[in-house]
Amino acid sequence: MKAGYYQFTPEFGDRKKNLAAIREKLSNCRADLMILPELCTTGYQFCSTEEARDLAEEIPGGDSVRELTDIAYDNGKYIIAGIAESDGGSLYNTAVIVGPEGYIGKYRKIHLFYEENLWFTPGDDLPQVFDLDGVKVGILICFDWIFPEVFRILALEGADLIALPANLVLPYCQDAMRTRSIENKVYVAVANRTGSEERGGKDRLTFTGASRITDPKGNVIASSPVDAEDIRIVEIDIELSRNKEINEYNRVLASRRPDVYAKYPKL
Amino acid sequence: MKAGYYQFTPEFGDRKKNLAAIREKLSNCRADLMILPELCTTGYQFCSTEEARDLAEEIPGGDSVRELTDIAYDNGKYIIAGIAESDGGSLYNTAVIVGPEGYIGKYRKIHLFYEENLWFTPGDDLPQVFDLDGVKVGILICFDWIFPEVFRILALEGADLIALPANLVLPYCQDAMRTRSIENKVYVAVANRTGSEERGGKDRLTFTGASRITDPKGNVIASSPVDAEDIRIVEIDIELSRNKEINEYNRVLASRRPDVYAKYPKL
Repeated sequence: MKAGYYQFTPEFGDRKKNLAAIREKLSNCRADLMILPELCTTGYQFCSTEEARDLAEEIPGGDSVRELTDIAYDNGKYIIAGIAESDGGSLYNTAVIVGPEGYIGKYRKIHLFYEENLWFTPGDDLPQVFDLDGVKVGILICFDWIFPEVFRILALEGADLIALPANLVLPYCQDAMRTRSIENKVYVAVANRTGSEERGGKDRLTFTGASRITDPKGNVIASSPVDAEDIRIVEIDIELSRNKEINEYNRVLASRRPDVYAKYPKL
Repeated sequence: MKAGYYQFTPEFGDRKKNLAAIREKLSNCRADLMILPELCTTGYQFCSTEEARDLAEEIPGGDSVRELTDIAYDNGKYIIAGIAESDGGSLYNTAVIVGPEGYIGKYRKIHLFYEENLWFTPGDDLPQVFDLDGVKVGILICFDWIFPEVFRILALEGADLIALPANLVLPYCQDAMRTRSIENKVYVAVANRTGSEERGGKDRLTFTGASRITDPKGNVIASSPVDAEDIRIVEIDIELSRNKEINEYNRVLASRRPDVYAKYPKL
């Protein structure tokens, strides 16, 4: 499988423009899976719950999923993309996965960052692994990066690649993904956004770009600039992500000690 | 508290020489806590269980703990040091903590690396936090570095500083400690050894030195060469390790979602 990301600067509130940019770029790249940033059809810096509600959509019923599914169909690709979700009275910071045959599933961000806590409801479901033509792909979103627990869950479920749509403002995540890859022997792809937003009198948020993909040995195999649109695509070798051996006595997941960890109920 | 480490090359099988070097160096440095490498009184590369048994000692009854306690008393310091432990019929890869008032406690490595599995029994007890004059210090050993679970347990128990006596042969650990510091907002001190061992026809093991201390923001605040003896000492600021705030909505431990993680019993 060839997997990659499209790092760009979404225009706040302009879903049509953002989806047009996505269609254009994804039509011109050769990949089986493309990962887009968090909240990539709406932009990030909402000023109120009302504004977030106006821009959020039902999943899979909304316009963004319909258009992403069309793009996936037209180009024979899987797509993972961050979207603001509306479900009944609640809003979620969600990532969807779609493919040539339609909508596949979603992940609702369980660790909300900063003012996201004002408008979004945190997800309550475990992250899942999706089987894409034999490659197992898990999804997390942005601030989830700081919690090794959720990467571990996806690795234990057999993920080869963990996709992380992001709107990062802190500078640490990209480097830390080497550790996430090594400790689980998985690929990690951070699809971050660029640009900045300064809305409704709030502080300017500057997004840190530098999207990257790390391999199961912790090598950085794709890396983008901090402030420019970019597409990178790599080959995902599932022999590498499924070989958990460190040496003949140690395997990175099998050498865990859940019998000991279980003695600590607060974990 | 001033905490530091002594990176050196233990002489295999020569406990007296190793303890003499430790006494000399620790008598001439101004620190409240000094951390020594894993298995620092015996060396690392045992060739048989019999050899390991001959070199292992009771804890706290053995010579190494007695001498380390003397050094701690004479110099008014706490010392953390890796020692081969013998207890009944079993051997453990253990780290002890001693202070001016004597033996304090120990940690038995729960994740054994490579051929350690042939002679050592893995520890079954949770790592603990020790209160050293108001600074809370946890202990892990070497290969434990790849398991975020044990760092999390110590952070949740209130550790300000996690000490990691090590005999590292893989090159990844030192960099990964920035992630361990950031994800828990704690200090991490890796006390690695230098030199190499090639015993009993086995492959040569070259230890990677480069001991380091990272602060709760992930900054590398002490760093040593890969191949030379070295001592580094830093100030531990517990205001920094106890302020878990990332922003007004997020704290690095309180923003965890144990309610969600608990849905995954294999974690």
